[in-house]
Amino acid sequence: VRSITELITAKRDGETLSGDEIRHVVDAYARHALPDEQMAALAMAIYFRGLDDGETSALVEAMLASGRTLDLSSLGPGRVDKHSTGGVGDKTSLILAPAAAAAGLVVPMVSGRGLGHTGGTIDKLESIPGFSADVEVDRFRAILASVGCAIIGQTADIAPADKRLYALRDVTATVGSLPLIVGSIMSKKLAEDIEGLVLDVKVGRAAFMKTLEDARALAKSMIAVGERMGVRVIAFLTRMEEPLGRMVGNACEVREAMDLLRGAGPADMRELVATLAGAMVEIATGADAEEARATIEATLDDGRAWARFEQMVAAQGGDLAALPAPAGETLIPAPRDGFVTSIDGLAIAKVCGALGAGRQRQGDVIDPLVGVRVVARRGDRVARGGPLCAVLHGQRGAPPAEARDRLAAAFSLGDVAPEPVRLVLERV
Amino acid sequence: VRSITELITAKRDGETLSGDEIRHVVDAYARHALPDEQMAALAMAIYFRGLDDGETSALVEAMLASGRTLDLSSLGPGRVDKHSTGGVGDKTSLILAPAAAAAGLVVPMVSGRGLGHTGGTIDKLESIPGFSADVEVDRFRAILASVGCAIIGQTADIAPADKRLYALRDVTATVGSLPLIVGSIMSKKLAEDIEGLVLDVKVGRAAFMKTLEDARALAKSMIAVGERMGVRVIAFLTRMEEPLGRMVGNACEVREAMDLLRGAGPADMRELVATLAGAMVEIATGADAEEARATIEATLDDGRAWARFEQMVAAQGGDLAALPAPAGETLIPAPRDGFVTSIDGLAIAKVCGALGAGRQRQGDVIDPLVGVRVVARRGDRVARGGPLCAVLHGQRGAPPAEARDRLAAAFSLGDVAPEPVRLVLERV
Repeated sequence: VRSITELITAKRDGETLSGDEIRHVVDAYARHALPDEQMAALAMAIYFRGLDDGETSALVEAMLASGRTLDLSSLGPGRVDKHSTGGVGDKTSLILAPAAAAAGLVVPMVSGRGLGHTGGTIDKLESIPGFSADVEVDRFRAILASVGCAIIGQTADIAPADKRLYALRDVTATVGSLPLIVGSIMSKKLAEDIEGLVLDVKVGRAAFMKTLEDARALAKSMIAVGERMGVRVIAFLTRMEEPLGRMVGNACEVREAMDLLRGAGPADMRELVATLAGAMVEIATGADAEEARATIEATLDDGRAWARFEQMVAAQGGDLAALPAPAGETLIPAPRDGFVTSIDGLAIAKVCGALGAGRQRQGDVIDPLVGVRVVARRGDRVARGGPLCAVLHGQRGAPPAEARDRLAAAFSLGDVAPEPVRLVLERV
Repeated sequence: VRSITELITAKRDGETLSGDEIRHVVDAYARHALPDEQMAALAMAIYFRGLDDGETSALVEAMLASGRTLDLSSLGPGRVDKHSTGGVGDKTSLILAPAAAAAGLVVPMVSGRGLGHTGGTIDKLESIPGFSADVEVDRFRAILASVGCAIIGQTADIAPADKRLYALRDVTATVGSLPLIVGSIMSKKLAEDIEGLVLDVKVGRAAFMKTLEDARALAKSMIAVGERMGVRVIAFLTRMEEPLGRMVGNACEVREAMDLLRGAGPADMRELVATLAGAMVEIATGADAEEARATIEATLDDGRAWARFEQMVAAQGGDLAALPAPAGETLIPAPRDGFVTSIDGLAIAKVCGALGAGRQRQGDVIDPLVGVRVVARRGDRVARGGPLCAVLHGQRGAPPAEARDRLAAAFSLGDVAPEPVRLVLERV
């Protein structure tokens, strides 16, 4: 048996570690028997040398085994979830989970709270008064049995090794390691006892993955690890430059999701939901892609997805009628005539975050009302002085000049309309 | 100003950090304001990406500044020291310091306690009853003024950042990083307020550096950093396969050093002392190499080096007459007739260490009597059953069979005498 220092040396020198060795490391780390400095050195060695699919699978298994895994077998087959690597204005989960449930699937979504510029799915749902993401496993199972979907927060007992490792990676410049990303996502998702997973890998300047190549590598590794562990994974690479839909924030994104659940709302969001939830249906039923997609779109158009959403929110204690609306908004004017040639989604997310829509650090309280409504979208024509976007006021009221300037600067204007772009770039 | 995580990211991606950034990191680490996990990740990134001479010099400066530096200017010019990267049976310092002092130099040697298979220079000296390496700075200066040399242990207030970093590197597989090795050595040596340093980089299977190329790179980096910091460095690459001299241990190495100080003893040790101490004289006086070497050999042959050694030991409280001798020894017989074609110095050191001559971990007490006397050296002819070496008994008495077998296996025997080899491979 090699010591931890010998294992770090081996990985540093490009060797492949055995499954037992990987499990030993993760197990020791979870028990606090391996100090942070050794894990940090190993993580950096992994950053440089990588992990192969076997090592990554062992990592996922060990992180899974460090905590509790759900047993949802009593709910029968058709348990499929979705994961996204994170985008600006992405309210997909809020629409996709009820739509997939309406199509007969079971969607046991365990989601993280965001530590980013804007909130995560849970933060968005918590802008509904009364909504609770703290749901006991028995209650979670019961909601899934009756509604078909539930969205709860990650509990401390799911993959605690990942929780510890994630915090470490954050301060040691090893967040970007592909096998560690795969390990982190898969260990949390496989704890949900799912049969399939649809993965949305965002690509672009406002995404974690900046290039198609990196995104494709992540997708392939997730698929390979899923295969080894008996979970079918379908991945899509999707564009992440401009915000998705028109709303960026928390309560405002819930509102936009509600439009989509009733067959309305922005076309790009509907396209993304139909694609991703369609693939979930494919996995669960074996339907072909077009058929599966049509099944999902039908649930949005005939009120079934909406009904599931209402049931889910009510089951989790939320009062949709009480969803707060902003007291006012500040329009950001265009500095010239022209076409919107691009929008810097990351810049918009950062302004939203600074205004209170996201956490700068763990424990920060989110202001659910703060947000940005994009008025002029990519390809739209604007007149000088006309609105590019609007800041939705939260507790702090109107935004300072600096925030307004940064928002205006996020819109690039040109004399010629930009070429249309595709949202879904590739299916892996 | 970049955050620590941003600096780790920059180094990870191959950027050069500024001197201020390096100093900021080391300063924060010394003040315990930078956690071990971040330093570990940075050390591993440095392992992969390296540091250039400017970064390494900044590292040395910052580690120096983290603690106390001596002021020995009152002793006048001619302050030169030697550092070796560590070899088996290497008792050079015990001979070289008095010899150089006898040649008119001042040798303020601050040495580490070994954490290896056999003890360090201080451990060897401490086998002399009464000898103390814990010497206050004023007393150190006084001994240097009267004797010209003193050998003391590293105090906690010299380069504490290096001390902390060294312990961290040990458990994070980053001990082998060349710039971190240079930083560690130079920060401790420059704290001695010396004008010149002679470096003995051991090369071979029993050395830290296994190849000439690695050893040369270390030597060149040390010379470059020394130059930037106003200290002249001369480096030698020397062979480290067989033990140096005949003795491996602690008290027995002191005894062999005493022979050499009186003009006797093994030729390889005398060659090494003349080469290294000769280079010290070169630096201090500007003499040419042959002349400087002859100056040193004269001090060994005419009793002046011996006198300085006696004075130094007495000044540090040691009673040479009380140096203990082993109660007995166990001969290790040759399994066949033949020539000794090679001796595995590292294997011999490991057996010595296991028998009590070294520390397996910090805080272990060393048995000064334990040692190995090499009887048949490389190139010697042996008869079956005749002695290869002898184990010098310590408190635990005769060695177990396993130790005897391992010692016998350390000697390779062949039918043909091996080609002679050079001890000093290269001057850099």
